[in-house]
Amino acid sequence: MPIPEGYIYLDNASSTRTSPEVVKEMLPFFTEIYAVASSQFSHTAGIIASEALEKSRKIIANILHVEPEEVIFTSDATESNNLAIKGFAFANRHKGKHIIVSPVETHSVLQSVKTLQQEGFEVTFLKVDDEGRLDPYSLKNAIRTDTILVSIQWVNQETGTIQPITELANICRESGIVFHTDASWAVGKMEIDLSKIPVDMLTFTGSLINGPKGIAVLIRKKHVLLKKIMDGGFNEFNLRPGVENIPGAVGIAKALELWTDDRRKIIAHLDSILKESLLTIEDSLFNGSKNFRLPGILNISFDRVEGESVILHLDMKKIAVITGSACFSRSLEPSHVLMAMGYTHERAHGSIRYSLSFENTEEEMKKTAEATRDVVERLRKITPIKKE
Amino acid sequence: MPIPEGYIYLDNASSTRTSPEVVKEMLPFFTEIYAVASSQFSHTAGIIASEALEKSRKIIANILHVEPEEVIFTSDATESNNLAIKGFAFANRHKGKHIIVSPVETHSVLQSVKTLQQEGFEVTFLKVDDEGRLDPYSLKNAIRTDTILVSIQWVNQETGTIQPITELANICRESGIVFHTDASWAVGKMEIDLSKIPVDMLTFTGSLINGPKGIAVLIRKKHVLLKKIMDGGFNEFNLRPGVENIPGAVGIAKALELWTDDRRKIIAHLDSILKESLLTIEDSLFNGSKNFRLPGILNISFDRVEGESVILHLDMKKIAVITGSACFSRSLEPSHVLMAMGYTHERAHGSIRYSLSFENTEEEMKKTAEATRDVVERLRKITPIKKE
Repeated sequence: MPIPEGYIYLDNASSTRTSPEVVKEMLPFFTEIYAVASSQFSHTAGIIASEALEKSRKIIANILHVEPEEVIFTSDATESNNLAIKGFAFANRHKGKHIIVSPVETHSVLQSVKTLQQEGFEVTFLKVDDEGRLDPYSLKNAIRTDTILVSIQWVNQETGTIQPITELANICRESGIVFHTDASWAVGKMEIDLSKIPVDMLTFTGSLINGPKGIAVLIRKKHVLLKKIMDGGFNEFNLRPGVENIPGAVGIAKALELWTDDRRKIIAHLDSILKESLLTIEDSLFNGSKNFRLPGILNISFDRVEGESVILHLDMKKIAVITGSACFSRSLEPSHVLMAMGYTHERAHGSIRYSLSFENTEEEMKKTAEATRDVVERLRKITPIKKE
Repeated sequence: MPIPEGYIYLDNASSTRTSPEVVKEMLPFFTEIYAVASSQFSHTAGIIASEALEKSRKIIANILHVEPEEVIFTSDATESNNLAIKGFAFANRHKGKHIIVSPVETHSVLQSVKTLQQEGFEVTFLKVDDEGRLDPYSLKNAIRTDTILVSIQWVNQETGTIQPITELANICRESGIVFHTDASWAVGKMEIDLSKIPVDMLTFTGSLINGPKGIAVLIRKKHVLLKKIMDGGFNEFNLRPGVENIPGAVGIAKALELWTDDRRKIIAHLDSILKESLLTIEDSLFNGSKNFRLPGILNISFDRVEGESVILHLDMKKIAVITGSACFSRSLEPSHVLMAMGYTHERAHGSIRYSLSFENTEEEMKKTAEATRDVVERLRKITPIKKE
């Protein structure tokens, strides 16, 4: 089954299109240069493979302002988060057993700390406000003498809410606590300079920056001790064994390189068109932060309709959006992010996430807003739920 | 730096060329169909992505004669082995704490059981003979009432020695013990029908069957309970969270499909030419099994020369081979495989692994044998080591 013609894909916070320039960069590493990097000690093909891997590492390091040996390639954001959180906790349990996270993190963070709870660690979940934001003071107050790790995402996957990462990271640095951030929805989409913010570990992934799937990065500053979660050889500075995914590494580096202010401006422009139009729909509610939102993730609830019905009707109109979080759309559970923001079940269930790409167009934004209005109005005509 | 013209790559047991047909099959899943599979509950793009993933699963299931839901996609053989061994041990520790492996396994198996030893498990390393083979009776004798898992590779990565998997699996099945095999060097290269052999878990990887890097499979029969090693969402039958690598899944399925007897015959033919020529070199020693070797991995020691010197000189002649195991060429440690076979340090250090592809040619085999003879003879002229 092919993608229908004229299809409007607005699920870019779940997965992005791999850019043709990225694919082009990767291609030689499938069919021409395919040795393993560790064969660099044996033959020329290995040296060439290793050089490609290290060049990719350097590109990423330069953009984020870290050292090349602080760039660890992993298979996806899930693995980066598991390695950062469980890897750190297991390597540093003698220093303390307390970890702090936010309740709006992605499932790989929340489930990793759940596993740590079973292993005797204690976890504090900070509260977020109705914009999904943390108050840095709440972090300050939650810190204990045995706190070893804080993990707070940079940008939220469902609302685009930006956390005050600089303040949070500074608080951790002052307290001698390691700070990890899942920046999967931030990297590329905003400029990040880790020479200016004391982030100790940072996760990002190829599939969300128009790079390939199956590759991600964990930035791990040199002073951070981790225990590897997978056993094997000494690859990736003895933190991630296995045959290096060199096409993936080349791809994620190229993808990151391609993110410029031009792309960010396009997304911000499209976002403002869509947001403005959608909010003219009667009884629409903006979910997220007015002043601290990264354009491109737009979350809106429509009163008296089910998100589930809206997205299925939008799909019939060839528009791809989701309700709640991508991983759990199947469960019909209300989004844990919106619930943590103090919203009602109804508001959470009526929420639609529109997530944009720089490849979307103004025309698509207009069509999407019109289609949404049409669907919402028709659904309201047949709903038994009355306006209060 | 490009690969030199006329380069002869004989390091296919480290990593293979991704076939152009495989790349072609993958391409649409980078730039056209790039949604996440879990969005199947939300939109058409997700349904199409999910269908591609499930089709790949089915292709693999059909070839190996297992059920589609017994095919778990992972990021590489290292992850498959970690999930199989640690995932099984942690899910079944209440049943027993004893595990049996061979000493010639790959590092991800050996290091996984080392981690389990630190967690209170007991591990028996069976002995192999001078051909690198296990005696099924030794497995029978090693089984205890608290044995829960046996992990024995199908084909050895350094010598191509084939283990008596049917006998080993049957012994385990009779004793009610779960049997895992790392078949990374076997799948594709030989026909495997899991409806006839009671293997409970099996590892194989894209990068060794002319598929892409960054994708592998763990076959896990339905009755086997595993604890996942990475925390997150419910993907892959709740065994491997994270965004599915659909281009990778499509690629590994296509790669497996392309393995036929034709390829196997080509490799066997090339192998016999190379083996015969190399063994005419004075004081050359065949390392491995005379009757139970998978053609394509040929391991030969040359008396009175260092493998390290031979491979560097061969590389200057544009021939890529390795000495010892790929992962540890840098360490100059003698191969743990050859040492377990009871060889001397000298023989292990003088060993060269030639690993072939169906894309190699007779001409390349002849050139390689000639070049090896030339290098070995020249090195012997300058060595202080005298023939005894």
